[in-house]
Amino acid sequence: MPDVVVAVDAMGGDKAPLVPVAGAVEAARQGVGILLVGDQPALEKALEQHGEIPAGIEIIHAADRIHSAEDAVKAVRSKPDASMVVACRQVHEGRAGAVVSAGHTGAMLAASTLILRRLPGVIRPGLAVPMPSIAGPIVMIDGGANAECRPEYLAQFAVMGRVLGRDILGIDDPTVGILTIGEEAGKGTELVQEAYALLDGTPGFIGNIEGRDIPKGTARIIVTDGFTGNVALKLYEGTAAMIFHEIKRGLTSSVRGKVAGALGMSVFKDLRKNIDPEEYGSAYLLGVRGISMIGHGNTGTRGMANGILRAAQGVREDVTGHIQAGLTAAP
Amino acid sequence: MPDVVVAVDAMGGDKAPLVPVAGAVEAARQGVGILLVGDQPALEKALEQHGEIPAGIEIIHAADRIHSAEDAVKAVRSKPDASMVVACRQVHEGRAGAVVSAGHTGAMLAASTLILRRLPGVIRPGLAVPMPSIAGPIVMIDGGANAECRPEYLAQFAVMGRVLGRDILGIDDPTVGILTIGEEAGKGTELVQEAYALLDGTPGFIGNIEGRDIPKGTARIIVTDGFTGNVALKLYEGTAAMIFHEIKRGLTSSVRGKVAGALGMSVFKDLRKNIDPEEYGSAYLLGVRGISMIGHGNTGTRGMANGILRAAQGVREDVTGHIQAGLTAAP
Repeated sequence: MPDVVVAVDAMGGDKAPLVPVAGAVEAARQGVGILLVGDQPALEKALEQHGEIPAGIEIIHAADRIHSAEDAVKAVRSKPDASMVVACRQVHEGRAGAVVSAGHTGAMLAASTLILRRLPGVIRPGLAVPMPSIAGPIVMIDGGANAECRPEYLAQFAVMGRVLGRDILGIDDPTVGILTIGEEAGKGTELVQEAYALLDGTPGFIGNIEGRDIPKGTARIIVTDGFTGNVALKLYEGTAAMIFHEIKRGLTSSVRGKVAGALGMSVFKDLRKNIDPEEYGSAYLLGVRGISMIGHGNTGTRGMANGILRAAQGVREDVTGHIQAGLTAAP
Repeated sequence: MPDVVVAVDAMGGDKAPLVPVAGAVEAARQGVGILLVGDQPALEKALEQHGEIPAGIEIIHAADRIHSAEDAVKAVRSKPDASMVVACRQVHEGRAGAVVSAGHTGAMLAASTLILRRLPGVIRPGLAVPMPSIAGPIVMIDGGANAECRPEYLAQFAVMGRVLGRDILGIDDPTVGILTIGEEAGKGTELVQEAYALLDGTPGFIGNIEGRDIPKGTARIIVTDGFTGNVALKLYEGTAAMIFHEIKRGLTSSVRGKVAGALGMSVFKDLRKNIDPEEYGSAYLLGVRGISMIGHGNTGTRGMANGILRAAQGVREDVTGHIQAGLTAAP
């Protein structure tokens, strides 16, 4: 009997149901209980590819699914039998401690907020996105759940982000910085200045950071509005991907490159691994009742399995309880 | 007699006056007239290192300078003899067509706005920052002059950015995109949605782009508020610098790496050059009367020389006239 159960939206993501099913099988082999939610015949067929199915995987049939082009809130409200909605309901009704989907990001944000509901005292749930840095994993919060924010949201994001950093990413006493355009408190927007005043003196707070500090890991928890956060995280991923692509092309497109490539590729791969989003799983909507994780649509099996394992860890470590305690303790 | 004169703040930047002087000498050798503004004895000494001084370099003595920690507006107002202020005055008084400084960015923004003054019809000057992409150079505007923006500013930034792209970066009919968090017009902040409505149907406008589109060069002119723009450009530079640093470390820290390094370094250098900010010079404050270019504090001689040459090109191509014509033509 597994100690933790995670509901998996098996119909979400570019390669559903194959990748979610493969990730779930891998996580189940590592002791996580799985509720695999989706079209039963399709899931049974996908499971057949995996030889002996580990105990602790249960299929929950969901007849419908949400597609990537749909309006998020409308889809969630009008499709009670969609796999994502049914998966979220498993957490709300207590059959699972966490839900994971690599489907429509906006719909998963809406489903998590509407079905799991906010924790008491949370003004707005925030999307916490783990990212790599040379100092180790960092967390961007808000990564896009709230395009426009008030200072109080940012103050809560700091508390919630620190819990995620400690309980799931294993960062000891995470530092917190506000993302802005100058290091002095006097710079930036009104939002940043008021959030600074609220955060000043709180645990881990190191002040303002700039865009160039993100890859350095100067602050491990980066607090920002969802507009800036989303632009920044997509730019960060896109820049790394572009540089690796160009280097790979350079290394293989000439004789000179081919010789260097054979020798250099292993060095390059070490670095690539350190930047790989699959290593850190996905994004967490913090501030709802339960763990809600949202994967990239193109997440692979390893990313999916890592995501489910980290979500299970979040349940074991009681992320939700710690967030609630942190928000109650905050001034 | 040079056809164009550029005023250079020779006391601005981390390695002043040596680097600004060396850059100015290089640009003068390529036919640009230079007003070298700063402490006369120090400039004469710095010039001594360059053998024969090209004709067309004239020293303008300025007894004072603005330091990096000073309050920007206060420093500009209270130091009429600071090199940066004197250099801006050369443009305002018609002795130079452009001014270049690698000094205090905020002070140079303030000095350019206060001394050069806005072009008629410009609501807010915008900081246009050339950056690399795999499609060629792109321009981020606003890169930080206006932390909070209104939709009308963004519409003007698009017009001004296109002129810079065409006249100085040599981009044919530059595409324009608004930086936001979703590709559909319905997403993002109120600012983005209203700016979209203003830009819809204007020349080059391709709609919304996301952070990941920046390194791809999906839009060559990226229109955004100065907060988001500044975060994005610093993150972009910081990510590229971090990855190159890590790769270099990997390539030289092992025997395997040393062999690969010797062969692979030249491939790597080709790419590095394509990402190098020194290649594109610095940032341009667009919307003022004359060309105002602001360099990184750590700009090297090549970056400084490139900056001065591009500023001179801006005068020759009549960037200012084209901006004014573009704004008059815009609806």
